[in-house]
Amino acid sequence: MAKDTKPRRPRAETPKGFRDYFGAEVAERKAMLDTICKVYERYGFDPLETSAVETLDALGKYLPDVDRPNAGVFGWQEEDGDWLALRYDLTAPLARVAAQYRNELPTPYRRYAMGPVWRNEKPGPGRFRQFYQCDADTVGAASVAADAEICAMLADALEAVGIERGDYIVRVNNRKVLNGVMEVAGILDPADPDRFEHERGIVLRAIDKLDRLGPKGVRALLGEGREDESGDFTKGAGLSDEQAEVVMGFVEANEHVRAQLLQHSRQSTGLGVEAFKDIAKASEGGVVEPAASRFDAQSHEAWNDFVLERLGQLVKSSDMGKEGVRELREIANLCYQQGYFADRIRIDPSVVRGLGYYTGPVFEAELTFEILDEKGRPRQFGSVAGGGRYDGLVERFTGQKVPATGVSIGVDRLLAALRAKGRAGGALQGPVIVTVMDRDRMAAYQAMVGRLRAADIRAEVYLGNPRNFGNQLKYADKRGAPIAIIQGSDEAARGVVQIKDLVLGAQIAASASLEEWKSQPAQVEVPEADLVAEVRRILDRNGG
Amino acid sequence: MAKDTKPRRPRAETPKGFRDYFGAEVAERKAMLDTICKVYERYGFDPLETSAVETLDALGKYLPDVDRPNAGVFGWQEEDGDWLALRYDLTAPLARVAAQYRNELPTPYRRYAMGPVWRNEKPGPGRFRQFYQCDADTVGAASVAADAEICAMLADALEAVGIERGDYIVRVNNRKVLNGVMEVAGILDPADPDRFEHERGIVLRAIDKLDRLGPKGVRALLGEGREDESGDFTKGAGLSDEQAEVVMGFVEANEHVRAQLLQHSRQSTGLGVEAFKDIAKASEGGVVEPAASRFDAQSHEAWNDFVLERLGQLVKSSDMGKEGVRELREIANLCYQQGYFADRIRIDPSVVRGLGYYTGPVFEAELTFEILDEKGRPRQFGSVAGGGRYDGLVERFTGQKVPATGVSIGVDRLLAALRAKGRAGGALQGPVIVTVMDRDRMAAYQAMVGRLRAADIRAEVYLGNPRNFGNQLKYADKRGAPIAIIQGSDEAARGVVQIKDLVLGAQIAASASLEEWKSQPAQVEVPEADLVAEVRRILDRNGG
Repeated sequence: MAKDTKPRRPRAETPKGFRDYFGAEVAERKAMLDTICKVYERYGFDPLETSAVETLDALGKYLPDVDRPNAGVFGWQEEDGDWLALRYDLTAPLARVAAQYRNELPTPYRRYAMGPVWRNEKPGPGRFRQFYQCDADTVGAASVAADAEICAMLADALEAVGIERGDYIVRVNNRKVLNGVMEVAGILDPADPDRFEHERGIVLRAIDKLDRLGPKGVRALLGEGREDESGDFTKGAGLSDEQAEVVMGFVEANEHVRAQLLQHSRQSTGLGVEAFKDIAKASEGGVVEPAASRFDAQSHEAWNDFVLERLGQLVKSSDMGKEGVRELREIANLCYQQGYFADRIRIDPSVVRGLGYYTGPVFEAELTFEILDEKGRPRQFGSVAGGGRYDGLVERFTGQKVPATGVSIGVDRLLAALRAKGRAGGALQGPVIVTVMDRDRMAAYQAMVGRLRAADIRAEVYLGNPRNFGNQLKYADKRGAPIAIIQGSDEAARGVVQIKDLVLGAQIAASASLEEWKSQPAQVEVPEADLVAEVRRILDRNGG
Repeated sequence: MAKDTKPRRPRAETPKGFRDYFGAEVAERKAMLDTICKVYERYGFDPLETSAVETLDALGKYLPDVDRPNAGVFGWQEEDGDWLALRYDLTAPLARVAAQYRNELPTPYRRYAMGPVWRNEKPGPGRFRQFYQCDADTVGAASVAADAEICAMLADALEAVGIERGDYIVRVNNRKVLNGVMEVAGILDPADPDRFEHERGIVLRAIDKLDRLGPKGVRALLGEGREDESGDFTKGAGLSDEQAEVVMGFVEANEHVRAQLLQHSRQSTGLGVEAFKDIAKASEGGVVEPAASRFDAQSHEAWNDFVLERLGQLVKSSDMGKEGVRELREIANLCYQQGYFADRIRIDPSVVRGLGYYTGPVFEAELTFEILDEKGRPRQFGSVAGGGRYDGLVERFTGQKVPATGVSIGVDRLLAALRAKGRAGGALQGPVIVTVMDRDRMAAYQAMVGRLRAADIRAEVYLGNPRNFGNQLKYADKRGAPIAIIQGSDEAARGVVQIKDLVLGAQIAASASLEEWKSQPAQVEVPEADLVAEVRRILDRNGG
């Protein structure tokens, strides 16, 4: 309590790259996460909440997004010399927990986690330095049944929050297949896995950019390199033509399968055929995209058979590649047996996922409906979740490989999708406002809201300066209040209240004739005893 | 993707002073916060979620707990030179928001916020550097009706989460009354409010320690100072005997009122009298604590009348003091009119609250039931929430006073209280475990859990190594699974499944005779088609 010198005023500003969430924004996100929670729990996953802070040591250098080398963490040094930092994702803390409590936790350990993560990046439009993630992972299960389960759970979660079947696809690939292709191309030597790591990094990132750069752009990056429109040159992986052709076979596997399906559809009949025809249409835009809702068991099998056959050709004699194809076949079969056909979960060689730490199956959930971009052009909504198998993260701590697989939902992206679809729930109706006509009767007004609240109706007394009644109605408007209650001394003496239906009032104000306006049907007088019943009646009428 | 030199292994450790929350701990807290949310929303409060990070500038030096000068924030410097820090409470970010969005937000602005806050303190047993707060505040309402509303809402919230009426008291005081007493004692000069600030700080902290030090200890701190048992000397405020007596009149106001009530109870009859008698009993321990449940309207009025009369005598001619008493009378009346009697919300001069920034009414919710302390001695559970009016926080940013009042619930303390009472909700039942007898039939097992989940039953397939069946049952036990499903190739061929009731099984194992054990009533065989119905029947029987 030392005497302060007069300080300059601090600026009231959200720090750069951070943001504040108000009312409905908070409620909608909470409703969505609560729904996802329930799905995760139904699948046997337990919640885990670690603190926001980890030792920098434990977080390690597993930052995702290798394309953004500037991405970093918020860290600081403790007085005792230790470095602490804010978590940048929910996977690194899980790896730490799995190692720390390995003797107490069940094996396998299924856990979900939801919460903010922090990235020390240059803030940009729509890119924030704190954002929510919502993860589910299974630690200690080597079987790809764990991967298939995660994919099915992801599909269920998307449908539970309001993404309709046909509006999303969970695409599944396997890093081992890609590694098999790399082995065939001569840039992966199973006997010396670190060799060519630099080249493989470039290849991985190039493939991940297929939808942006197209096959030609990817091909350039596999070879000498690529000059973009601005004249900037990106150095390539330096593969020979023969090597590059092997990789391009993988990149264009979807195109190859499409051609086979088209031929197949000319020779057969049945429901699935319609899907194949759609594939042909959609592929004109370069994207393989059947009208998902027409997939059935038959077309599911045909699709996966063709894809897996093609991948088998590509990995040739690579043991790792063949194992990857076998795993994908098992995942496809597990999904099929549970009724998740290729309209929902689909083997797709185009999924790569940038993250270096994946070691097996990788998956990505994409929303296929169209929205308008900032220039008003239609585009697919795109990815809202992704994940895969990572068997090395826990090993960092213990020295022992622990199989793990999981998914992370991009909370803000999924919420944006729900809003675009008009499916964001949890909206909070404005409160019933009891206005203050007579400051001395505050206790009576408080008793009124008390009665309303006891009937589970959201209600409040106007607590600003009551002198200007117009301000009270303006306040009610700003709060989205459905009803205003008015009781002056005259009404109090007669034991009645005025109930003003603000929803109906707004409709009348917008469209009513003078006659209707005068008859004021939006305002009724009722005995005080009927307050709650009448408010309830109006709320029900207005669909509240 | 540069080649790493082999790094040493990081330690898998939660950073010092932080902790991890598993399963039920997360679920219980979430259930409690969700319930409190609903109460806040019913009162018209809207959610607000600011980011964890603020500029150090915006946070300011309003750290609570003046007794712990080491208390600090976690902060770091940005590349551009700005200092950022983790929020240490939810009030400082609210003040920033109220200033930043003052033209867009409704006035008054009622908001609630829940989330973690961080304190850079020396970690100690049970003291963590990240913990949850749950706040509700009204910004822009000068009327004490806003304070009364917060007190009523706090009482409702406590009852909603499971604290029974009679097990808590919301105590209300007014900083202005205390200031009036200070004015009378000559250590507050309304014309020069900064004068004697140091002395007032000591007085405030001394009064706040009444229940620890007793009246004698407080008296010593008002004068020269006090030596504790260890021989450490704390310097006092240096008041003269006359000055100290004025302050002690305030400190012992409760004792004074108690004496009056006892006398009153001898002269009158009625329900309230029982409460007064209880006061006499409880006061033997030096604490005024009537059996709260016996308070009624009559005793409420008597209690408050005596307290307010006594406070009026103490503040004498101080204008600020008289205003404080008037405000308390209004709060008492508003509570009374809404049916919150002194068993739930009570004017109580012993509430001071350490925080320097309070400017008017202050309140504290105390749980009055007893628990055993670490040495097995019974003690009252104590404070779980507190707050008050602070009209200066927004002014820091804008230069204009903005009235504000609010409350903060100590989430971990309240949760501990609910656990002590066996009222913590939200517990998650373990999943039904489908065991794996035959690895090749994984898809069939997955289909079984699919059917269970579709019926909203929490279920999972065992995904560990299935070779050792005992491990599968151990896993089921660790997960708290109520039921295990078993289907080997024999059962599969006959189209049946074995359903093992693990709850009943555990009971039988604990108490059954050999005969009962042999008859194995805890395991039944049913046709596959009846799987869901039979599982549901067992769960219902076991109260799941």
